[in-house]
Amino acid sequence: MKKYLFFNDYSEGAHPDILKALERTNKTQEMGYGEDFYTIEAKKVIRKAINKDNADIHFVSGGTQTNLVVLESILRPYESVISATSGHINIHEAGAIEGVGHKINTVESNDGKLTVSLIKKIIEAHSDEHMVKPKVVFISQATELGTIYSKAELRDISEFCRKNNLYLYLDGARLGSALTSIQSDLTLEEVAKLVDVFYIGGTKNGALLGETIVILNKNLGQDFRYYLKRRGALLAKGRSISVQFLELFKNNLYFELARHANQMAERLTDGIKKLGYKFLTESPTNQIFPIFPNKVIKKLEELYGFYIWTKIDETNSAIRLVTSWATDEKAVDEFLNDLAKLK
Amino acid sequence: MKKYLFFNDYSEGAHPDILKALERTNKTQEMGYGEDFYTIEAKKVIRKAINKDNADIHFVSGGTQTNLVVLESILRPYESVISATSGHINIHEAGAIEGVGHKINTVESNDGKLTVSLIKKIIEAHSDEHMVKPKVVFISQATELGTIYSKAELRDISEFCRKNNLYLYLDGARLGSALTSIQSDLTLEEVAKLVDVFYIGGTKNGALLGETIVILNKNLGQDFRYYLKRRGALLAKGRSISVQFLELFKNNLYFELARHANQMAERLTDGIKKLGYKFLTESPTNQIFPIFPNKVIKKLEELYGFYIWTKIDETNSAIRLVTSWATDEKAVDEFLNDLAKLK
Amino acid sequence: MKKYLFFNDYSEGAHPDILKALERTNKTQEMGYGEDFYTIEAKKVIRKAINKDNADIHFVSGGTQTNLVVLESILRPYESVISATSGHINIHEAGAIEGVGHKINTVESNDGKLTVSLIKKIIEAHSDEHMVKPKVVFISQATELGTIYSKAELRDISEFCRKNNLYLYLDGARLGSALTSIQSDLTLEEVAKLVDVFYIGGTKNGALLGETIVILNKNLGQDFRYYLKRRGALLAKGRSISVQFLELFKNNLYFELARHANQMAERLTDGIKKLGYKFLTESPTNQIFPIFPNKVIKKLEELYGFYIWTKIDETNSAIRLVTSWATDEKAVDEFLNDLAKLK
Amino acid sequence: MKKYLFFNDYSEGAHPDILKALERTNKTQEMGYGEDFYTIEAKKVIRKAINKDNADIHFVSGGTQTNLVVLESILRPYESVISATSGHINIHEAGAIEGVGHKINTVESNDGKLTVSLIKKIIEAHSDEHMVKPKVVFISQATELGTIYSKAELRDISEFCRKNNLYLYLDGARLGSALTSIQSDLTLEEVAKLVDVFYIGGTKNGALLGETIVILNKNLGQDFRYYLKRRGALLAKGRSISVQFLELFKNNLYFELARHANQMAERLTDGIKKLGYKFLTESPTNQIFPIFPNKVIKKLEELYGFYIWTKIDETNSAIRLVTSWATDEKAVDEFLNDLAKLK
Repeated sequence: MKKYLFFNDYSEGAHPDILKALERTNKTQEMGYGEDFYTIEAKKVIRKAINKDNADIHFVSGGTQTNLVVLESILRPYESVISATSGHINIHEAGAIEGVGHKINTVESNDGKLTVSLIKKIIEAHSDEHMVKPKVVFISQATELGTIYSKAELRDISEFCRKNNLYLYLDGARLGSALTSIQSDLTLEEVAKLVDVFYIGGTKNGALLGETIVILNKNLGQDFRYYLKRRGALLAKGRSISVQFLELFKNNLYFELARHANQMAERLTDGIKKLGYKFLTESPTNQIFPIFPNKVIKKLEELYGFYIWTKIDETNSAIRLVTSWATDEKAVDEFLNDLAKLK
Repeated sequence: MKKYLFFNDYSEGAHPDILKALERTNKTQEMGYGEDFYTIEAKKVIRKAINKDNADIHFVSGGTQTNLVVLESILRPYESVISATSGHINIHEAGAIEGVGHKINTVESNDGKLTVSLIKKIIEAHSDEHMVKPKVVFISQATELGTIYSKAELRDISEFCRKNNLYLYLDGARLGSALTSIQSDLTLEEVAKLVDVFYIGGTKNGALLGETIVILNKNLGQDFRYYLKRRGALLAKGRSISVQFLELFKNNLYFELARHANQMAERLTDGIKKLGYKFLTESPTNQIFPIFPNKVIKKLEELYGFYIWTKIDETNSAIRLVTSWATDEKAVDEFLNDLAKLK
Repeated sequence: MKKYLFFNDYSEGAHPDILKALERTNKTQEMGYGEDFYTIEAKKVIRKAINKDNADIHFVSGGTQTNLVVLESILRPYESVISATSGHINIHEAGAIEGVGHKINTVESNDGKLTVSLIKKIIEAHSDEHMVKPKVVFISQATELGTIYSKAELRDISEFCRKNNLYLYLDGARLGSALTSIQSDLTLEEVAKLVDVFYIGGTKNGALLGETIVILNKNLGQDFRYYLKRRGALLAKGRSISVQFLELFKNNLYFELARHANQMAERLTDGIKKLGYKFLTESPTNQIFPIFPNKVIKKLEELYGFYIWTKIDETNSAIRLVTSWATDEKAVDEFLNDLAKLK
Repeated sequence: MKKYLFFNDYSEGAHPDILKALERTNKTQEMGYGEDFYTIEAKKVIRKAINKDNADIHFVSGGTQTNLVVLESILRPYESVISATSGHINIHEAGAIEGVGHKINTVESNDGKLTVSLIKKIIEAHSDEHMVKPKVVFISQATELGTIYSKAELRDISEFCRKNNLYLYLDGARLGSALTSIQSDLTLEEVAKLVDVFYIGGTKNGALLGETIVILNKNLGQDFRYYLKRRGALLAKGRSISVQFLELFKNNLYFELARHANQMAERLTDGIKKLGYKFLTESPTNQIFPIFPNKVIKKLEELYGFYIWTKIDETNSAIRLVTSWATDEKAVDEFLNDLAKLK
């Protein structure tokens, strides 16, 4: 039995307020498939949070499902999506995007982020009908490596996309953590101005399950419910997701939970740095990647759950530690104490 | 504001015991993607309920998702699935099965049920590589029309399939209602013996959301988790579904809820019959299809929610009334009283 | 060794003039992928033949390929195509349309033809995102049963489609035979006015292989070469098809060949009628469906090649006889003589 | 008007013997869809050429079509194919492989060839159902860069694949050129022993159009005609391709044509080297990649057709020159003379 699991940010169920909301709303009779009172309310609350009265909003059960339905709805069959090689759609979705017929054009990026110049490389290499036609730029905020786009970086990409008839899609599985990071200079409202579609992750930030798709570009989203239904993403009890987001966005709970996760990650980072260890990336979010000697890692594994991320050299590796809304200071401090003893 | 909604069996949230189970298990840290303690336990409990130690079991979020992933995993690209024209996969899944590349071979059936002779018609019409190759027989228990297969009927189809190298897949969205129907001579264990794959519906029988896929044929199910992941059906918090099924199958709750729904439907049926009305089909489950004059329907619609199913003649239509675990006698009796007044 | 094969209209190679054209043009160096001189010329010749200067024209290798690429290019993923149950795409393309993700909504038709009222039945049954969205009407001229649409019939369907935002796609695998039929009151130019997309069949009318896709609706056809390439339909030596159509349409050869095939079918029909036999359908094109006693069929099969189309009763069946540009009177007369002897 | 086009090896029609064979066989009546006499004969001749009595052989119209049908028939939906980044399927097929649902796992390779160690890198990075499962290794002989695998190199890859349950698929669009290269130590028979499936390219070696698929692994190829039909690759007049391959393989014509193309490429290479120019790759086949100053290239483009392949530095680029069965010494010598004058 491990002392604590730092494997990921979905080890526990839901934040207690979410469960209470499900209970509180449980008995009313509602229409199915997202045409219920709570879904309508949750859409209003989120439209207000992003300050976009006309945003098209949908609630679904998970992130891979979101990515495949959104991209299928945007792309014509021969069009492709540009992603960093490390992008979630490229590595960790078992070929879901190719499964709906689309190529992912990848480009290497050390920190998991795309830049205008990386995107240009792909665009310039695709010139005629013997190749796919890149049409969507896929970015994650935060990235798979815990890094985040600054306002200037996101604006640059956004402008490039608009000038070049590309759509910009932002995967926000960990958007809460990104926006509440101490390094963040972006707000949710600004994100909604700069991208064409994005999603607000619930599963990794306190919901039992669920993600919120936000479609901002009026040329997109036509007949979106057909796309959802056809891929099995239109839940009969739509309320089961929307009630959760209503709770998360009614009183800022979404950001409080994310901020807590970040604070626990910072506390870990500070403690590990004090012990003299380095990191694979400078992550200001709830995933951190400290580098330890393999011997230390072996000992730590007896006490804690985490993934070994990558080999650094013969004797050292980077591990991934993920904190969440549910991580408490006690667990963090105990980890740091145990690490200190292994020094 | 309507007095009661008979639209469907997923108007409310979850049975209170389900919510309590989610709360009770909420804080433990678990592995993601269905490798947690509760999922393992729920699999055991269901294997015991069907008396099949080796059944391959998976928990997913909804019925259309289940159907598309299961059929994709069974069929080679050019193979097809045989269904009654009224089958859910044929009409009400927005082309989800075609969306994963497969033709549905349909055959008309008045009561929504397939028979060996109907299946044979399809098989005999498909002879070479200019046509698809039928490989799976798709049936629902209960059907879209509320009817159920008897043990003899299911056995006949099962034997025919095994002799002819066809797989038999049973959609159990309303399996609880079918098995607890007063007309049923089948048990869950017997179903598991006669089919190759089936699913046990949770969404329509008291769960917040979720279905249980049960793969019995050892030739099927290889790498099934890849199929799930690729279609966005592998939930990060697998526990969120399995905890519910663990609760439903621990103490027979699943069958109690279904039996209650059936009893409410019978009460409705008896009352309506006493008032002299006829029915579209003789349904022994929780969906019933009484035929009323259009004038009566108009008045009823002011008080109750339900769907008009089909036009019978110029002045009469059949409506669909669906009861659930959450329907109480009071609502049923009130409906019957109001109907009596409209006579 | 049979005396003659009436199996189909692609038993021989190509009309000799086609082979000569291939030889004549063989040595010039041309650009690949349909950007060569002959392809450009062939497009001009066909645009003139249909009197549409802006028609978008493409040459491909076969009919199933044509149907799948055209429909994929028109339909969004959740949209469907309406077809008679007997339609080639529904039965004889091994699920090619479902293979690119689309449902075929079928409706029974005795003569293989659709009508506005049959199309309406499908449209009216599809109302929301739980179902596919019918978007294309698929018809064949001639149909699988040898029948043809009159000008009035085609106009009715065309008007209905335009009023209802449906696209009309005409499969012209045997368009030559239809247009040169003695019963036809339609010209190629009129067809091009009434439909959104159609194809002119070459394989079944004297070409070695190949079909010409004609896209008339300016809203369709965008990036069509990408669709072709992605499905392997963009031939490196595009000239190999276009040279053939250039020859076929330069001097009316296309219609001469079709008319000959029809005349041979009429000669067969007249002779068979004189012998007192009936037909399954009244076909004015190059496929005819006489009904013979099974005993007669057995004897005929020793001498000639043809398919048995359908059982009529215990002792009689309909067979299919297909004539082509290559069928000569001698073969027809010999068949009639042999049939007379079997009387 | 250019003096000569070195754009590719499909600028002309077919070798005259091919056209003669089409003419010679034109009039016989044959069964459709590859069940004709010539197809049966061509299969025999090819089985003899590869010394494999049981090889499963199919004739299709083009290379992209071949690749997508073969890979679709081998792979289960979540399985992927490993390719060099420069592979034809990865860049030049408009997403055809993703179009049938499969991810291509790419690895950089300077010379366009895969090695066991490159393949291992991909295999080792794919461990569970969150990722695709690599199952096929795709190689081209010759590669897109004109390079070829030696017997030892191909054997190494073959052995690795067999040990690791991977299938080896060889794209032989330019197999003739590879096997008749002065550097080749491989025979057609040896290729057939080492791979699971390959294809023999006709379009780029003298055929009007067409490729021959050869399936050697007995676990593959089941119901292959269904796969062909479903993707529109089963030609009605199957004879139109098989007659060509019968001619190509009856008298060694296939290898003679390829050897000629190679000799013209060598003559070009030798002449260019004598003038002091370097090459991007050391290609022993019919595609060569000389590096010229941009000024020289500009002048050459006025006289000859060819593609600029890649920028080398600010003032130099590599171009691609392709020779074929139809290239004559005169064109080569004229090019060299003109190049000499530009020195």
